[in-house]
Amino acid sequence: MNKLNAWLRLNPLTEDRSDYMAAPVTNGSLTIADIVKDLQNEGMEIKAETAIDIITRFNRKVAERVLGGYNVNTGLVYMRPVIKGVFRDRTWNPAVNSVYVAMNQGMELRKALADTMVEILGEQSDPIAIYTLTDSTTGATDGTLTRGRNAELKGSYLRIVGDDPAVGITFRNIDTSETVNLDAADIVLNEPSRLLILVPATLAAGEYELTVTTQFTAASKLLKQPRSVTFSEPVVID
Amino acid sequence: MNKLNAWLRLNPLTEDRSDYMAAPVTNGSLTIADIVKDLQNEGMEIKAETAIDIITRFNRKVAERVLGGYNVNTGLVYMRPVIKGVFRDRTWNPAVNSVYVAMNQGMELRKALADTMVEILGEQSDPIAIYTLTDSTTGATDGTLTRGRNAELKGSYLRIVGDDPAVGITFRNIDTSETVNLDAADIVLNEPSRLLILVPATLAAGEYELTVTTQFTAASKLLKQPRSVTFSEPVVID
Repeated sequence: MNKLNAWLRLNPLTEDRSDYMAAPVTNGSLTIADIVKDLQNEGMEIKAETAIDIITRFNRKVAERVLGGYNVNTGLVYMRPVIKGVFRDRTWNPAVNSVYVAMNQGMELRKALADTMVEILGEQSDPIAIYTLTDSTTGATDGTLTRGRNAELKGSYLRIVGDDPAVGITFRNIDTSETVNLDAADIVLNEPSRLLILVPATLAAGEYELTVTTQFTAASKLLKQPRSVTFSEPVVID
Repeated sequence: MNKLNAWLRLNPLTEDRSDYMAAPVTNGSLTIADIVKDLQNEGMEIKAETAIDIITRFNRKVAERVLGGYNVNTGLVYMRPVIKGVFRDRTWNPAVNSVYVAMNQGMELRKALADTMVEILGEQSDPIAIYTLTDSTTGATDGTLTRGRNAELKGSYLRIVGDDPAVGITFRNIDTSETVNLDAADIVLNEPSRLLILVPATLAAGEYELTVTTQFTAASKLLKQPRSVTFSEPVVID
Protein backbone atom coordinates (compact mmCIF):
# COMPACT_ATOMS: atom_id res chain seq x y z
CA MET A 1 0.00 0.00 0.00
CA ASN A 2 1.42 3.39 -1.07
CA LYS A 3 0.72 6.35 1.19
CA LEU A 4 0.59 9.89 -0.15
CA ASN A 5 0.40 12.76 2.34
CA ALA A 6 -1.37 15.94 1.27
CA TRP A 7 -2.26 19.37 2.63
CA LEU A 8 -5.55 21.09 1.94
CA ARG A 9 -5.35 24.60 0.54
CA LEU A 10 -8.05 27.08 -0.35
CA ASN A 11 -8.33 27.27 -4.12
CA PRO A 12 -6.61 30.59 -4.97
CA LEU A 13 -8.67 30.97 -8.14
CA THR A 14 -12.03 31.35 -6.39
CA GLU A 15 -13.43 33.49 -3.56
CA ASP A 16 -15.36 30.49 -2.22
CA ARG A 17 -14.14 29.73 1.34
CA SER A 18 -15.14 26.05 1.08
CA ASP A 19 -13.34 25.35 -2.20
CA TYR A 20 -10.28 23.37 -1.12
CA MET A 21 -7.78 21.49 -3.20
CA ALA A 22 -5.18 19.00 -1.99
CA ALA A 23 -1.46 19.34 -2.71
CA PRO A 24 0.74 16.25 -2.20
CA VAL A 25 3.65 16.72 0.19
CA THR A 26 6.79 16.38 -1.91
CA ASN A 27 9.55 14.32 -0.34
CA GLY A 28 12.11 15.21 -2.97
CA SER A 29 13.27 14.37 -6.46
CA LEU A 30 14.75 11.07 -7.54
CA THR A 31 16.87 10.09 -10.53
CA ILE A 32 17.67 6.73 -12.12
CA ALA A 33 20.64 6.35 -9.74
CA ASP A 34 18.44 6.91 -6.67
CA ILE A 35 15.94 4.28 -7.78
CA VAL A 36 18.74 1.79 -8.51
CA LYS A 37 20.12 2.42 -5.00
CA ASP A 38 16.65 1.65 -3.60
CA LEU A 39 16.62 -1.64 -5.51
CA GLN A 40 20.06 -2.55 -4.17
CA ASN A 41 18.92 -1.80 -0.63
CA GLU A 42 16.13 -4.28 -1.23
CA GLY A 43 18.61 -6.96 -2.23
CA MET A 44 19.05 -6.60 -5.99
CA GLU A 45 22.47 -8.14 -6.64
CA ILE A 46 23.29 -6.47 -9.94
CA LYS A 47 25.97 -3.77 -9.85
CA ALA A 48 24.64 -0.22 -9.83
CA GLU A 49 26.65 0.80 -12.90
CA THR A 50 25.31 -2.17 -14.86
CA ALA A 51 21.70 -1.43 -13.90
CA ILE A 52 22.03 2.29 -14.68
CA ASP A 53 23.66 1.46 -18.00
CA ILE A 54 20.85 -0.91 -19.00
CA ILE A 55 18.11 1.55 -18.03
CA THR A 56 19.82 4.44 -19.80
CA ARG A 57 20.23 2.42 -22.99
CA PHE A 58 16.65 1.21 -22.68
CA ASN A 59 15.35 4.79 -22.40
CA ARG A 60 17.39 5.94 -25.37
CA LYS A 61 16.07 3.09 -27.50
CA VAL A 62 12.46 3.73 -26.41
CA ALA A 63 12.79 7.41 -27.42
CA GLU A 64 14.24 6.36 -30.77
CA ARG A 65 11.44 3.85 -31.42
CA VAL A 66 8.60 6.19 -30.46
CA LEU A 67 10.00 8.84 -32.79
CA GLY A 68 10.39 6.21 -35.50
CA GLY A 69 6.61 5.68 -35.46
CA TYR A 70 6.05 2.97 -32.84
CA ASN A 71 3.75 2.98 -29.84
CA VAL A 72 5.83 1.84 -26.88
CA ASN A 73 4.49 0.44 -23.62
CA THR A 74 7.09 0.26 -20.86
CA GLY A 75 4.56 -0.74 -18.20
CA LEU A 76 5.14 2.60 -16.51
CA VAL A 77 4.10 4.70 -19.47
CA TYR A 78 2.43 4.18 -22.84
CA MET A 79 3.91 6.49 -25.46
CA ARG A 80 2.98 7.47 -29.00
CA PRO A 81 4.14 10.21 -31.35
CA VAL A 82 1.77 13.07 -32.17
CA ILE A 83 2.14 15.87 -34.71
CA LYS A 84 0.82 19.25 -33.58
CA GLY A 85 -0.58 22.11 -35.59
CA VAL A 86 -2.55 22.48 -38.80
CA PHE A 87 -1.05 22.07 -42.28
CA ARG A 88 -2.74 24.90 -44.21
CA ASP A 89 -0.53 24.74 -47.26
CA ARG A 90 0.03 20.98 -46.84
CA THR A 91 3.70 21.41 -45.91
CA TRP A 92 5.58 21.42 -42.63
CA ASN A 93 5.77 24.88 -41.08
CA PRO A 94 8.18 25.00 -38.13
CA ALA A 95 6.32 28.03 -36.74
CA VAL A 96 3.12 26.01 -36.16
CA ASN A 97 4.03 22.32 -36.51
CA SER A 98 5.94 20.22 -34.02
CA VAL A 99 6.22 16.66 -32.77
CA TYR A 100 5.61 15.60 -29.20
CA VAL A 101 5.17 12.34 -27.37
CA ALA A 102 1.75 11.72 -25.85
CA MET A 103 1.98 9.75 -22.61
CA ASN A 104 -0.58 7.67 -20.76
CA GLN A 105 -0.17 5.88 -17.47
CA GLY A 106 0.97 2.28 -18.04
CA MET A 107 -0.36 -0.78 -16.26
CA GLU A 108 2.32 -0.84 -13.55
CA LEU A 109 1.42 2.73 -12.63
CA ARG A 110 -2.32 2.00 -12.68
CA LYS A 111 -1.82 -0.94 -10.34
CA ALA A 112 0.19 1.25 -7.97
CA LEU A 113 -2.51 3.97 -8.15
CA ALA A 114 -5.18 1.43 -7.21
CA ASP A 115 -3.06 0.58 -4.18
CA THR A 116 -2.55 4.16 -2.95
CA MET A 117 -4.08 5.77 0.12
CA VAL A 118 -4.17 9.56 0.47
CA GLU A 119 -3.75 10.93 3.98
CA ILE A 120 -5.09 14.48 4.33
CA LEU A 121 -2.91 16.18 6.94
CA GLY A 122 -5.31 19.07 7.41
CA GLU A 123 -5.43 22.64 6.24
CA GLN A 124 -2.12 24.33 5.63
CA SER A 125 -2.00 27.78 7.18
CA ASP A 126 -0.09 30.55 5.40
CA PRO A 127 0.83 28.11 2.63
CA ILE A 128 3.87 28.96 0.53
CA ALA A 129 2.88 28.18 -3.05
CA ILE A 130 3.74 28.93 -6.68
CA TYR A 131 0.59 29.03 -8.80
CA THR A 132 1.96 30.22 -12.12
CA LEU A 133 5.28 30.82 -13.82
CA THR A 134 5.25 33.05 -16.90
CA ASP A 135 8.02 33.84 -19.36
CA SER A 136 7.65 37.63 -19.64
CA THR A 137 9.12 37.59 -23.16
CA THR A 138 7.11 34.82 -24.83
CA GLY A 139 4.13 34.72 -22.47
CA ALA A 140 4.62 30.95 -22.15
CA THR A 141 3.20 29.39 -18.97
CA ASP A 142 4.32 25.80 -19.66
CA GLY A 143 7.62 26.12 -17.81
CA THR A 144 9.75 27.20 -20.77
CA LEU A 145 11.87 30.24 -19.90
CA THR A 146 14.25 32.38 -21.93
CA ARG A 147 17.74 32.91 -20.57
CA GLY A 148 18.70 36.54 -19.94
CA ARG A 149 15.02 37.58 -19.86
CA ASN A 150 12.43 38.11 -17.13
CA ALA A 151 10.05 35.57 -15.67
CA GLU A 152 7.17 36.14 -13.26
CA LEU A 153 6.13 33.80 -10.44
CA LYS A 154 2.70 34.25 -8.87
CA GLY A 155 1.73 32.52 -5.67
CA SER A 156 1.53 33.09 -1.92
CA TYR A 157 4.11 33.87 0.79
CA LEU A 158 6.88 33.98 -1.80
CA ARG A 159 8.70 37.14 -0.70
CA ILE A 160 12.41 36.33 -0.26
CA VAL A 161 13.57 37.40 3.21
CA GLY A 162 15.83 36.00 5.95
CA ASP A 163 19.46 35.40 6.75
CA ASP A 164 19.50 31.64 6.48
CA PRO A 165 22.03 30.61 3.80
CA ALA A 166 19.35 28.47 2.11
CA VAL A 167 17.13 31.49 1.41
CA GLY A 168 16.83 32.44 -2.27
CA ILE A 169 15.81 31.09 -5.66
CA THR A 170 17.55 28.09 -7.17
CA PHE A 171 17.55 26.34 -10.54
CA ARG A 172 18.50 22.68 -10.08
CA ASN A 173 19.35 20.78 -13.26
CA ILE A 174 17.22 17.62 -13.28
CA ASP A 175 19.82 15.56 -15.13
CA THR A 176 23.07 16.68 -13.54
CA SER A 177 21.67 17.83 -10.13
CA GLU A 178 23.89 20.93 -10.52
CA THR A 179 22.33 23.91 -8.75
CA VAL A 180 22.47 27.56 -9.80
CA ASN A 181 21.59 30.15 -7.13
CA LEU A 182 19.93 33.26 -8.45
CA ASP A 183 21.82 36.43 -7.57
CA ALA A 184 19.85 38.67 -5.17
CA ALA A 185 20.14 41.48 -7.74
CA ASP A 186 18.26 39.29 -10.24
CA ILE A 187 15.13 39.31 -8.08
CA VAL A 188 13.62 42.41 -9.63
CA LEU A 189 10.29 42.44 -7.79
CA ASN A 190 10.03 40.79 -4.37
CA GLU A 191 6.41 40.78 -3.22
CA PRO A 192 4.53 38.21 -1.11
CA SER A 193 2.40 37.07 -4.05
CA ARG A 194 4.67 37.98 -6.95
CA LEU A 195 8.33 37.60 -7.83
CA LEU A 196 9.85 38.99 -11.00
CA ILE A 197 13.24 37.47 -11.75
CA LEU A 198 15.90 37.71 -14.41
CA VAL A 199 16.70 34.23 -15.74
CA PRO A 200 20.52 33.81 -15.70
CA ALA A 201 21.97 34.34 -19.16
CA THR A 202 24.51 31.62 -18.38
CA LEU A 203 21.97 28.85 -17.64
CA ALA A 204 22.74 25.81 -19.83
CA ALA A 205 20.01 24.24 -21.96
CA GLY A 206 18.16 21.63 -19.94
CA GLU A 207 15.37 20.91 -17.51
CA TYR A 208 15.41 22.46 -14.06
CA GLU A 209 13.53 22.44 -10.79
CA LEU A 210 12.79 26.00 -9.75
CA THR A 211 12.70 26.35 -5.95
CA VAL A 212 11.89 29.37 -3.79
CA THR A 213 13.20 29.27 -0.19
CA THR A 214 12.31 31.98 2.31
CA GLN A 215 11.73 32.76 5.99
CA PHE A 216 8.75 34.99 5.12
CA THR A 217 5.37 34.29 6.73
CA ALA A 218 2.12 36.09 7.66
CA ALA A 219 3.38 36.91 11.16
CA SER A 220 5.46 40.01 11.84
CA LYS A 221 8.46 37.84 12.77
CA LEU A 222 10.44 35.70 10.36
CA LEU A 223 10.30 31.92 10.42
CA LYS A 224 13.24 30.36 12.31
CA GLN A 225 13.53 27.62 9.73
CA PRO A 226 13.21 28.68 6.09
CA ARG A 227 10.67 26.82 3.99
CA SER A 228 10.70 25.98 0.28
CA VAL A 229 8.36 25.46 -2.59
CA THR A 230 9.26 23.94 -5.95
CA PHE A 231 7.31 24.79 -9.10
CA SER A 232 5.18 21.78 -10.05
CA GLU A 233 6.39 21.54 -13.66
CA PRO A 234 9.97 21.21 -14.86
CA VAL A 235 11.42 24.48 -16.08
CA VAL A 236 12.85 24.16 -19.58
CA ILE A 237 15.69 26.25 -21.02
CA ASP A 238 16.13 25.57 -24.75
CA MET B 1 18.25 11.35 -36.87
CA ASN B 2 14.78 9.88 -36.25
CA LYS B 3 12.34 9.85 -39.15
CA LEU B 4 8.61 9.93 -38.61
CA ASN B 5 6.34 9.34 -41.61
CA ALA B 6 2.93 11.00 -41.61
CA TRP B 7 -0.16 11.29 -43.79
CA LEU B 8 -2.12 14.48 -44.22
CA ARG B 9 -5.84 14.24 -43.57
CA LEU B 10 -8.56 16.85 -43.83
CA ASN B 11 -9.59 17.88 -40.31
CA PRO B 12 -12.92 16.05 -39.81
CA LEU B 13 -14.07 18.69 -37.31
CA THR B 14 -14.21 21.56 -39.80
CA GLU B 15 -15.73 22.14 -43.25
CA ASP B 16 -12.62 24.03 -44.33
CA ARG B 17 -11.03 22.20 -47.32
CA SER B 18 -7.57 23.58 -46.53
CA ASP B 19 -7.52 22.54 -42.85
CA TYR B 20 -5.22 19.51 -42.81
CA MET B 21 -3.73 17.66 -39.89
CA ALA B 22 -0.93 15.10 -39.95
CA ALA B 23 -1.25 11.59 -38.53
CA PRO B 24 1.97 9.63 -37.92
CA VAL B 25 2.17 6.26 -39.68
CA THR B 26 2.17 3.65 -36.91
CA ASN B 27 4.66 0.85 -37.39
CA GLY B 28 3.33 -1.22 -34.50
CA SER B 29 3.45 -1.57 -30.76
CA LEU B 30 6.51 -2.50 -28.74
CA THR B 31 6.91 -3.88 -25.22
CA ILE B 32 9.87 -4.02 -22.84
CA ALA B 33 10.90 -7.36 -24.38
CA ASP B 34 10.92 -5.88 -27.92
CA ILE B 35 13.13 -2.98 -26.85
CA VAL B 36 15.52 -5.34 -25.06
CA LYS B 37 15.72 -7.46 -28.22
CA ASP B 38 16.63 -4.29 -30.17
CA LEU B 39 19.42 -3.58 -27.68
CA GLN B 40 20.76 -7.13 -28.04
CA ASN B 41 20.74 -6.81 -31.82
CA GLU B 42 22.92 -3.73 -31.34
CA GLY B 43 25.41 -5.71 -29.30
CA MET B 44 24.26 -5.42 -25.68
CA GLU B 45 25.79 -8.46 -24.01
CA ILE B 46 23.47 -8.75 -21.01
CA LYS B 47 20.99 -11.63 -21.08
CA ALA B 48 17.45 -10.65 -22.11
CA GLU B 49 15.89 -12.09 -18.93
CA THR B 50 18.30 -10.12 -16.76
CA ALA B 51 17.61 -6.85 -18.60
CA ILE B 52 13.83 -7.35 -18.54
CA ASP B 53 13.99 -8.20 -14.84
CA ILE B 54 15.95 -5.02 -14.03
CA ILE B 55 13.65 -2.78 -16.06
CA THR B 56 10.52 -4.35 -14.57
CA ARG B 57 11.83 -3.90 -11.03
CA PHE B 58 12.91 -0.38 -11.86
CA ASN B 59 9.42 0.50 -13.13
CA ARG B 60 7.75 -0.98 -10.07
CA LYS B 61 10.01 0.99 -7.75
CA VAL B 62 9.46 4.23 -9.70
CA ALA B 63 5.67 3.79 -9.40
CA GLU B 64 6.03 3.14 -5.68
CA ARG B 65 8.21 6.23 -5.17
CA VAL B 66 6.00 8.59 -7.17
CA LEU B 67 2.98 7.45 -5.19
CA GLY B 68 4.97 7.87 -1.99
CA GLY B 69 5.33 11.59 -2.74
CA TYR B 70 8.52 11.86 -4.80
CA ASN B 71 9.06 13.48 -8.18
CA VAL B 72 10.91 10.96 -10.33
CA ASN B 73 12.92 11.74 -13.45
CA THR B 74 13.80 8.65 -15.49
CA GLY B 75 15.25 10.70 -18.36
CA LEU B 76 12.39 9.47 -20.53
CA VAL B 77 9.65 10.88 -18.35
CA TYR B 78 9.35 13.24 -15.38
CA MET B 79 6.59 12.12 -13.04
CA ARG B 80 4.85 13.67 -10.05
CA PRO B 81 1.70 12.75 -8.11
CA VAL B 82 -1.37 14.97 -8.43
CA ILE B 83 -4.64 14.87 -6.49
CA LYS B 84 -7.74 15.62 -8.54
CA GLY B 85 -11.04 17.13 -7.52
CA VAL B 86 -12.19 19.70 -4.96
CA PHE B 87 -12.48 18.98 -1.23
CA ARG B 88 -15.75 20.78 -0.35
CA ASP B 89 -16.16 19.26 3.09
CA ARG B 90 -12.38 18.95 3.57
CA THR B 91 -12.45 15.16 3.43
CA TRP B 92 -11.65 12.65 0.70
CA ASN B 93 -14.66 11.86 -1.47
CA PRO B 94 -14.01 8.89 -3.77
CA ALA B 95 -16.75 10.14 -6.12
CA VAL B 96 -14.79 13.32 -6.97
CA ASN B 97 -11.24 12.82 -5.68
CA SER B 98 -8.56 10.64 -7.20
CA VAL B 99 -4.80 10.41 -7.61
CA TYR B 100 -3.04 10.40 -10.93
CA VAL B 101 0.53 10.75 -12.11
CA ALA B 102 1.32 13.83 -14.20
CA MET B 103 3.94 13.12 -16.84
CA ASN B 104 6.26 15.45 -18.76
CA GLN B 105 8.74 14.55 -21.43
CA GLY B 106 12.17 13.85 -19.93
CA MET B 107 15.48 15.09 -21.30
CA GLU B 108 16.26 11.91 -23.27
CA LEU B 109 12.93 12.29 -25.06
CA ARG B 110 13.47 16.01 -25.70
CA LYS B 111 16.87 15.30 -27.21
CA ALA B 112 15.32 12.67 -29.49
CA LEU B 113 12.52 15.10 -30.45
CA ALA B 114 15.08 17.75 -31.42
CA ASP B 115 16.66 15.14 -33.68
CA THR B 116 13.45 14.08 -35.46
CA MET B 117 12.48 14.79 -39.04
CA VAL B 118 8.86 14.47 -40.17
CA GLU B 119 8.30 13.20 -43.69
CA ILE B 120 4.87 14.13 -45.05
CA LEU B 121 3.86 11.32 -47.41
CA GLY B 122 1.03 13.30 -48.97
CA GLU B 123 -2.70 13.32 -48.62
CA GLN B 124 -4.32 10.07 -47.67
CA SER B 125 -7.33 9.33 -49.86
CA ASP B 126 -10.36 7.61 -48.31
CA PRO B 127 -8.55 7.48 -44.98
CA ILE B 128 -9.70 4.90 -42.47
CA ALA B 129 -9.74 6.65 -39.11
CA ILE B 130 -11.22 6.50 -35.61
CA TYR B 131 -11.88 10.01 -34.31
CA THR B 132 -13.69 9.24 -31.05
CA LEU B 133 -14.51 6.31 -28.82
CA THR B 134 -17.34 6.78 -26.33
CA ASP B 135 -18.51 4.53 -23.52
CA SER B 136 -22.29 4.63 -24.09
CA THR B 137 -22.95 3.93 -20.39
CA THR B 138 -20.68 6.48 -18.70
CA GLY B 139 -20.21 8.91 -21.59
CA ALA B 140 -16.43 8.69 -21.03
CA THR B 141 -14.29 9.52 -24.07
CA ASP B 142 -10.88 8.89 -22.45
CA GLY B 143 -10.68 5.26 -23.56
CA THR B 144 -12.26 3.70 -20.47
CA LEU B 145 -14.96 1.20 -21.46
CA THR B 146 -17.39 -0.88 -19.42
CA ARG B 147 -17.47 -4.62 -20.06
CA GLY B 148 -20.86 -5.98 -21.14
CA ARG B 149 -21.99 -2.49 -22.25
CA ASN B 150 -22.05 -0.57 -25.54
CA ALA B 151 -19.33 1.65 -26.94
CA GLU B 152 -19.49 3.92 -29.98
CA LEU B 153 -16.68 4.54 -32.45
CA LYS B 154 -16.91 7.51 -34.81
CA GLY B 155 -14.58 7.96 -37.74
CA SER B 156 -14.35 7.32 -41.45
CA TYR B 157 -14.41 4.19 -43.64
CA LEU B 158 -14.96 2.01 -40.57
CA ARG B 159 -17.76 -0.28 -41.86
CA ILE B 160 -16.71 -3.90 -41.29
CA VAL B 161 -16.97 -5.84 -44.57
CA GLY B 162 -14.97 -8.50 -46.41
CA ASP B 163 -14.08 -12.17 -46.28
CA ASP B 164 -10.46 -11.82 -45.25
CA PRO B 165 -9.89 -13.63 -41.93
CA ALA B 166 -8.28 -10.49 -40.47
CA VAL B 167 -11.48 -8.45 -40.91
CA GLY B 168 -13.18 -7.46 -37.65
CA ILE B 169 -12.62 -5.67 -34.36
CA THR B 170 -9.94 -6.79 -31.93
CA PHE B 171 -8.94 -5.94 -28.37
CA ARG B 172 -5.24 -6.64 -27.88
CA ASN B 173 -4.02 -6.66 -24.27
CA ILE B 174 -1.03 -4.31 -24.10
CA ASP B 175 0.70 -6.30 -21.34
CA THR B 176 0.07 -9.90 -22.38
CA SER B 177 -0.40 -9.32 -26.16
CA GLU B 178 -3.41 -11.67 -25.92
CA THR B 179 -6.00 -10.76 -28.56
CA VAL B 180 -9.77 -10.99 -28.24
CA ASN B 181 -11.78 -10.90 -31.50
CA LEU B 182 -15.16 -9.27 -31.21
CA ASP B 183 -17.99 -11.56 -32.26
CA ALA B 184 -19.75 -10.32 -35.43
CA ALA B 185 -23.02 -10.32 -33.46
CA ASP B 186 -21.49 -7.80 -31.06
CA ILE B 187 -21.19 -5.20 -33.82
CA VAL B 188 -24.61 -3.65 -33.28
CA LEU B 189 -24.37 -0.80 -35.78
CA ASN B 190 -22.05 -1.11 -38.77
CA GLU B 191 -21.93 2.18 -40.67
CA PRO B 192 -19.05 3.80 -42.57
CA SER B 193 -18.65 6.59 -40.00
CA ARG B 194 -20.05 4.89 -36.93
CA LEU B 195 -19.71 1.53 -35.21
CA LEU B 196 -21.68 0.59 -32.13
CA ILE B 197 -20.23 -2.42 -30.37
CA LEU B 198 -20.94 -4.49 -27.28
CA VAL B 199 -17.77 -4.70 -25.16
CA PRO B 200 -17.20 -8.40 -24.28
CA ALA B 201 -18.41 -9.15 -20.74
CA THR B 202 -15.48 -11.57 -20.41
CA LEU B 203 -12.72 -9.01 -21.11
CA ALA B 204 -10.18 -9.04 -18.25
CA ALA B 205 -9.21 -5.81 -16.51
CA GLY B 206 -6.31 -4.19 -18.31
CA GLU B 207 -5.21 -1.93 -21.10
CA TYR B 208 -5.98 -2.80 -24.71
CA GLU B 209 -5.35 -1.64 -28.22
CA LEU B 210 -8.63 -1.44 -30.10
CA THR B 211 -8.18 -2.15 -33.82
CA VAL B 212 -10.70 -2.07 -36.66
CA THR B 213 -9.79 -4.07 -39.79
CA THR B 214 -11.94 -3.97 -42.92
CA GLN B 215 -11.95 -4.24 -46.72
CA PHE B 216 -14.41 -1.33 -46.98
CA THR B 217 -13.54 1.69 -49.15
CA ALA B 218 -15.21 4.51 -51.08
CA ALA B 219 -15.21 2.49 -54.32
CA SER B 220 -18.02 0.05 -55.13
CA LYS B 221 -15.59 -2.86 -54.93
CA LEU B 222 -13.95 -4.14 -51.76
CA LEU B 223 -10.24 -3.69 -51.10
CA LYS B 224 -8.21 -6.80 -51.97
CA GLN B 225 -6.07 -6.33 -48.88
CA PRO B 226 -7.87 -5.37 -45.67
CA ARG B 227 -6.60 -2.27 -43.85
CA SER B 228 -6.56 -1.47 -40.15
CA VAL B 229 -6.76 1.45 -37.81
CA THR B 230 -5.96 1.40 -34.09
CA PHE B 231 -7.54 3.89 -31.69
CA SER B 232 -4.89 6.41 -30.65
CA GLU B 233 -5.38 5.98 -26.89
CA PRO B 234 -5.16 2.77 -24.88
CA VAL B 235 -8.57 1.31 -24.05
CA VAL B 236 -8.91 0.68 -20.32
CA ILE B 237 -11.14 -1.97 -18.75
CA ASP B 238 -11.25 -1.60 -14.94
